[in-house]
Amino acid sequence: MTDLVNVTSRYQELKAQGLNLDMTRGKPSSEQLDLSLPMLDLVGTDNFHSENGVDCRNYGVLDGLPESKKLFAEFLEVAPSEIIIGGNSSLNLMHDTMVNAMLHGVSNQPPWIQQSPKFICPAPGYDRHFNICKHLGIEMIRVENGDTGPDMDEVERLVANDPSIKGIWIVPKYGNPTGAICSTENVKRLAQMKTAAPDFRIFWDNAYTVHHLTDTVPHLENILEACKTAGNPDRVFIFGSTSKITFASAGIAMIGGSEANMDWVRSHLKMQNIGHDKINQLRHIRFFKSMDGIRNHMKKHTAILRPKFDMVLSILEKELGGTGMATWNNPKGGYFINLNTRPNCAKRVVELAAEAGVKLTGAGAAFPHRNDPQDRNIRIAPSLPSLVDLEKATEILAVCIQLADQEN
Amino acid sequence: MTDLVNVTSRYQELKAQGLNLDMTRGKPSSEQLDLSLPMLDLVGTDNFHSENGVDCRNYGVLDGLPESKKLFAEFLEVAPSEIIIGGNSSLNLMHDTMVNAMLHGVSNQPPWIQQSPKFICPAPGYDRHFNICKHLGIEMIRVENGDTGPDMDEVERLVANDPSIKGIWIVPKYGNPTGAICSTENVKRLAQMKTAAPDFRIFWDNAYTVHHLTDTVPHLENILEACKTAGNPDRVFIFGSTSKITFASAGIAMIGGSEANMDWVRSHLKMQNIGHDKINQLRHIRFFKSMDGIRNHMKKHTAILRPKFDMVLSILEKELGGTGMATWNNPKGGYFINLNTRPNCAKRVVELAAEAGVKLTGAGAAFPHRNDPQDRNIRIAPSLPSLVDLEKATEILAVCIQLADQEN
Repeated sequence: MTDLVNVTSRYQELKAQGLNLDMTRGKPSSEQLDLSLPMLDLVGTDNFHSENGVDCRNYGVLDGLPESKKLFAEFLEVAPSEIIIGGNSSLNLMHDTMVNAMLHGVSNQPPWIQQSPKFICPAPGYDRHFNICKHLGIEMIRVENGDTGPDMDEVERLVANDPSIKGIWIVPKYGNPTGAICSTENVKRLAQMKTAAPDFRIFWDNAYTVHHLTDTVPHLENILEACKTAGNPDRVFIFGSTSKITFASAGIAMIGGSEANMDWVRSHLKMQNIGHDKINQLRHIRFFKSMDGIRNHMKKHTAILRPKFDMVLSILEKELGGTGMATWNNPKGGYFINLNTRPNCAKRVVELAAEAGVKLTGAGAAFPHRNDPQDRNIRIAPSLPSLVDLEKATEILAVCIQLADQEN
Repeated sequence: MTDLVNVTSRYQELKAQGLNLDMTRGKPSSEQLDLSLPMLDLVGTDNFHSENGVDCRNYGVLDGLPESKKLFAEFLEVAPSEIIIGGNSSLNLMHDTMVNAMLHGVSNQPPWIQQSPKFICPAPGYDRHFNICKHLGIEMIRVENGDTGPDMDEVERLVANDPSIKGIWIVPKYGNPTGAICSTENVKRLAQMKTAAPDFRIFWDNAYTVHHLTDTVPHLENILEACKTAGNPDRVFIFGSTSKITFASAGIAMIGGSEANMDWVRSHLKMQNIGHDKINQLRHIRFFKSMDGIRNHMKKHTAILRPKFDMVLSILEKELGGTGMATWNNPKGGYFINLNTRPNCAKRVVELAAEAGVKLTGAGAAFPHRNDPQDRNIRIAPSLPSLVDLEKATEILAVCIQLADQEN
């Protein structure tokens, strides 16, 4: 009871400071965005042609400049013939790919919309993936998302028997929010598994492929190669973008996969657009020059982000370490720390934090229908606030966890 | 017979010149694109915030910066609450709006896909509109597109009786390819007509709203106001872009309509994208400053385009005037000259021109399923070639018309 009194009074003190901090989304900070400012000056009044002489101001080049395809093919680890360059948003490409599969079908099968489609949603996962399924009326099947990717025993069991299961969402590297990296074994199992649906697709959202938080670059098995080896070359759509590399609002998004899948994407894209912004493609190509350019640029992001993650982790350890009130991961990359309270506390923690001026991602957001069955998962997004704000926000978070835990 | 011999030998001479000219699409010329080059320098390393302080490099602002909405609302002749700013392509907005209506329905009615949807396609019209319908399995009903817009008697008759007719495509000003301006009477009839479908929509592609070729700015009745007056405020989606004002590849597109319609657009857009490129919005706002800025800018386009249209018209007159072999219009704006040969000649003309090195838009392209029932319509796109090339290309076109006419 003394503890509860102490925690309550500490919470009231923090609340009285009238803070207004936002940790809801994985947004880059101004300091990170500054890293790409020189890009804005790389296309001017006398250098708007591509390497092969295309006037990038005019219509055309539906699927991306050759130099864009070359660089970002290396980025996605596919061939230049296995990539299409999009607009500013990989979410847009994922959404539109799902819509096209719903309306037109893939692999010469009937449109998904005619097949009562279901999707496997490893959770905790990315809320916007689940939103797309919900919005399109695709039934979501939750499976456990662990330290090496989804529970593959369960995934294999599900897809083997139900032809209406049309795909699975995967954030393979530094998963949102788990931070997990899909193991080589699990990549291979995803590529090889027998699916009752002949038109099954993996939506492989490789959003954090170069977003390391340490100097050690982990191995992620190449999913397209694995699919080809398994005799399922058309099984995967790979997505990526520079939204968290250059500018979140004005980056370049891309989709990769087999040439047959790219033909399918183009057959729909050509109805929708005459060609995405080629001038912005030029800016990116000239800014990075090569894959090494991207890698070097990302080290600057790491230098800004690592201290923020360390700050959060050290406060969590100081406040909650050994109490059993919460567990969390120490991610090696990506944008999130994944925290679990004891059951039935997460919603209350988010509520208490909001009252004390700290906005967190809604409890349950990482689950289909925002339904965390144990009400314990909280996604921490340390990138946007300053170190000073982050220190205060994490202290409040920790105190809210203590309070909610004791109330419970 | 002498005439045929003469024309044939002239055709052979022109063909021997081995030209390679492209008049297939309404693309702006380099000279026109040059007009907007200063725009590239208007967002740099120290001025990337919007008027209300938003960092335009980061995520967010789903439906456009307030200053973008203000300017382009005036451009579309709607209120700032009646517009959403898109990416680089109005075609993309039209396509996605059609897809959303197919999947989700409008006006709280069932999804169009469940209602065997049909669309009225005034023809000659824009091929990419018809492609969208065909691709989505929407049945196209052709009606005559005349000097004041579609045959409204026929349109009214059709929509009054068939609830599966879900909409109509209109390019209201300087129509593609007719050059026609929808008359005030026809705008009002479109707004007022009784439709059997409660979820009928006008897709109002105002692509050429400020694209005048003369100093006289014609009146186009405000469709949204007309719909509101008629008690059908949600009947119209209005589309526009700066693709033929600034850069075809890197312009700004927009959709307008009632607030209820904009809420509907947002409800789907938020699943697809976190926000379009705000930096490019800033470039445009700073370049134009105001609607007068846009109008003044367009005068520079007119100065470049008018001589090209005059060149084509004078050669057509010289070669074909009074022969009865062809009729054509003298457009007051837009990007095309609409030409009709005598029946059963257009395909042959396009074929002959291609053999002589002049690529024209495919015969029939302006009709649903590319089927021109009289095989006589040819769309001439004078904007891209230089004056010198245009002179030669039009001469070849005229000779091909003479040849095809005499062969026929």
